[in-house]
Amino acid sequence: MLVIGANAAGMTAASRAKRLAPSLDVIVLDASPRIAYSICGLPYRISGVVKSFDDLVLFTPESLRNERGIEARVSCRAVEIRSPQRKVVVESRASSGVKTGTETETIGYDKLVIATGYRPRLLDVEGMGPSSRGNGVFTASRLEDGEAIEDWLRDRDRSVRRAALIGGGYIGLEMAEALTKRGVRVALVESESNVLSSVDPEIAEKIAEELTRNGVELFTNRKVRALELRSNGDVESVVLDPGKLRAPADLVFVDVGVDPEVELAVAAGVRLGPSGAIAVTDRMETNLPGVYAAGNCAETLHLVSGSAAPIALGTVAAKQGRVVGENCAGRRTRFHGAVGTAIVKVFDLFAARTGLNESEARRAGFVPVSSTITGGFSASYFGPPTGVVKVIGDETSGRLLGAQIVGDLEAALRIDVAAVALTSRMSVEEAAQLDLAYAPPAGALWNPLLVALNTLAREL
Amino acid sequence: MLVIGANAAGMTAASRAKRLAPSLDVIVLDASPRIAYSICGLPYRISGVVKSFDDLVLFTPESLRNERGIEARVSCRAVEIRSPQRKVVVESRASSGVKTGTETETIGYDKLVIATGYRPRLLDVEGMGPSSRGNGVFTASRLEDGEAIEDWLRDRDRSVRRAALIGGGYIGLEMAEALTKRGVRVALVESESNVLSSVDPEIAEKIAEELTRNGVELFTNRKVRALELRSNGDVESVVLDPGKLRAPADLVFVDVGVDPEVELAVAAGVRLGPSGAIAVTDRMETNLPGVYAAGNCAETLHLVSGSAAPIALGTVAAKQGRVVGENCAGRRTRFHGAVGTAIVKVFDLFAARTGLNESEARRAGFVPVSSTITGGFSASYFGPPTGVVKVIGDETSGRLLGAQIVGDLEAALRIDVAAVALTSRMSVEEAAQLDLAYAPPAGALWNPLLVALNTLAREL
Repeated sequence: MLVIGANAAGMTAASRAKRLAPSLDVIVLDASPRIAYSICGLPYRISGVVKSFDDLVLFTPESLRNERGIEARVSCRAVEIRSPQRKVVVESRASSGVKTGTETETIGYDKLVIATGYRPRLLDVEGMGPSSRGNGVFTASRLEDGEAIEDWLRDRDRSVRRAALIGGGYIGLEMAEALTKRGVRVALVESESNVLSSVDPEIAEKIAEELTRNGVELFTNRKVRALELRSNGDVESVVLDPGKLRAPADLVFVDVGVDPEVELAVAAGVRLGPSGAIAVTDRMETNLPGVYAAGNCAETLHLVSGSAAPIALGTVAAKQGRVVGENCAGRRTRFHGAVGTAIVKVFDLFAARTGLNESEARRAGFVPVSSTITGGFSASYFGPPTGVVKVIGDETSGRLLGAQIVGDLEAALRIDVAAVALTSRMSVEEAAQLDLAYAPPAGALWNPLLVALNTLAREL
Repeated sequence: MLVIGANAAGMTAASRAKRLAPSLDVIVLDASPRIAYSICGLPYRISGVVKSFDDLVLFTPESLRNERGIEARVSCRAVEIRSPQRKVVVESRASSGVKTGTETETIGYDKLVIATGYRPRLLDVEGMGPSSRGNGVFTASRLEDGEAIEDWLRDRDRSVRRAALIGGGYIGLEMAEALTKRGVRVALVESESNVLSSVDPEIAEKIAEELTRNGVELFTNRKVRALELRSNGDVESVVLDPGKLRAPADLVFVDVGVDPEVELAVAAGVRLGPSGAIAVTDRMETNLPGVYAAGNCAETLHLVSGSAAPIALGTVAAKQGRVVGENCAGRRTRFHGAVGTAIVKVFDLFAARTGLNESEARRAGFVPVSSTITGGFSASYFGPPTGVVKVIGDETSGRLLGAQIVGDLEAALRIDVAAVALTSRMSVEEAAQLDLAYAPPAGALWNPLLVALNTLAREL
């Protein structure tokens, strides 16, 4: 069993297969020098909550071999899948004696797992491109990206006073907090009218308030026109449209979306789905015999929209990897799909979402009706309201379509209740009667999620 | 519309009906001088977290009339339901001029709601009986019980140094914490081998540790043989079997279960179910025309066991009340049932449960298999493990039967995930793939609940 890509999906696939079938030879390879790390933890290394990048690494090649019996090939890039021969051509950075170069070899497989993940998008504007990455323009898809940011921040010759965050999904918002905590003044540039496009305006508004309260300058409805560079090539400012506004920036972090990393797969004849990610069966098989795909490079069935698209979340990747691992070990395991549940901490606020937001619901052919309430997630005599809850239902069918919560951690965690209800295709009316935990210090007799659902049920 | 009993079920029924049908005449009556209070908040008034008993009261008769247009008759006891005439005979404590006495009258109804709640059990032992309640022996079913405890604690002539807690469900454990915080040394007497019989030993053990760590003395596997009283009739100690051990106690709190308060209903010809509580349809109708029942006096369909029994929880009572209110206002609303989700804070620990525990599962005809793990509910680099999770499945069908969590609040709140999965009759295998929220400060990539479910899935 050969696994290309050794993070959430790939590592889980390898570990699961090896555990179920110890006699299996399992090799994982990764183009990076490190494997099995938490990319989600990267902003927390930048902020200083996590003390070392090593703390984000679960396994070294050595510990992986010793503890799990899995062979890891690092700094090793798969360059070609020869499916008819069941072989993968790989290039390793080799250092033999005084010479350092590239070595090419082929590795055979009976089962191949493509877990190549995603590639962060860049903008097609002046001053931004793959080559500008060394000049203060960063994205985050690998641990090395975090190390490069850390080096850039620490470099004494360069005092980083201001940063511009372009876009801002989960990791972007976390980076806004992390950089602020490092004493860097952050400007967030968003082409839409709201930050965090995965939530609706009522929720995004609260996040925007929290960002502003913590000194982050917001430029919404602004497009990036160009990056201005210093004479040495380092980034100096971001020029915005409309207005040619200039945001000074000694560091630029780009979080404008990701694309599934599928080049290698496509070249080998692996079929993509309409979303542009690898099409898979519910056992995570591709169209090629013995070839599986999992994680951010593969499509995921969205249980609410009913359509398949990549969901760029580690939780989904790990679950898919587990399914692949079981199937490679000879079991027959299905991946049931996902509902797009996510949570993000932004300074002292947590925002969470699951299912479809209003615009996604409309695109999926539903007629969304929503209810938004402010409420307390503990008994009223225990404290003030702590969260804003939005729930979305389908006017046509009465079905629950999605939920969003912003507030403290206790409030935001309740998103999982909606996630399970979505997985079960519950109606709003059924979800409104859910039997949830209550005790004065831990909840409210009428949990605000239930209040919002009851309010929505009246409109359906 | 006439409602007997003005707490979670009754108040919700009255409010909901009046809101949907403003022209409806709605009268609630209650034998207590106060209505619409949170009995769950009582221990928090004793501990001092809540400053006044009034803070636990949502409505006075005046505010209820002014804000909701509902008439409340307090200190007014329903003594007879004359179903054929659609009348209820009530006795009020009347004070007219210098005379104070009891006045009897009848109130007609088109719809009647029986929401008489529960009655705490006492033990049939020497020294304990309804008359001993004035002598330092307390239960909790009404706000006046809390006031009496508070008076007993404040009374200068009587310095309350030690308390004995007999039994110990949710409110009993909360009282153990509250009394300890008031400087009273607490002994907890439990006839079973574990505290909190609604959870299994693995979880109860953690609660016992937390109680002991906070100075509560535990006497498990001990039965109360008698109360010893002082010459003035006040309680002095609890005598335990085996061993005739004597636990000194200036205050005794009894929490050995509750019985549905059904006398009035039975006398009127209302049919009870096999559980001894009032049998109801899924619209909460009794066998008598126009007569509904809701809350702790009525049966609740348990969605996992499939059988009906009272569930003595305010959350369930309020939901049933809502359903009754809607039906009384002319809608057709069904109550879907409950899964017995509950959470309790015991000092710095939260314990939560849902569905069936192992012994309940066995009694319901399942073949329970379980998995218990200790795990962290946030990313490992954010802190140490924070909870113990137990999940229970049915060996025969693979269905999820129940879950229990003990740990910090963030851990325990995840019980709701299992509650929703139980409501949807998910299999353990389906639940193990649930798409739950993750971010390093808010969760773990593999939420311990999912880890426990995955472990259990391997055994099914």
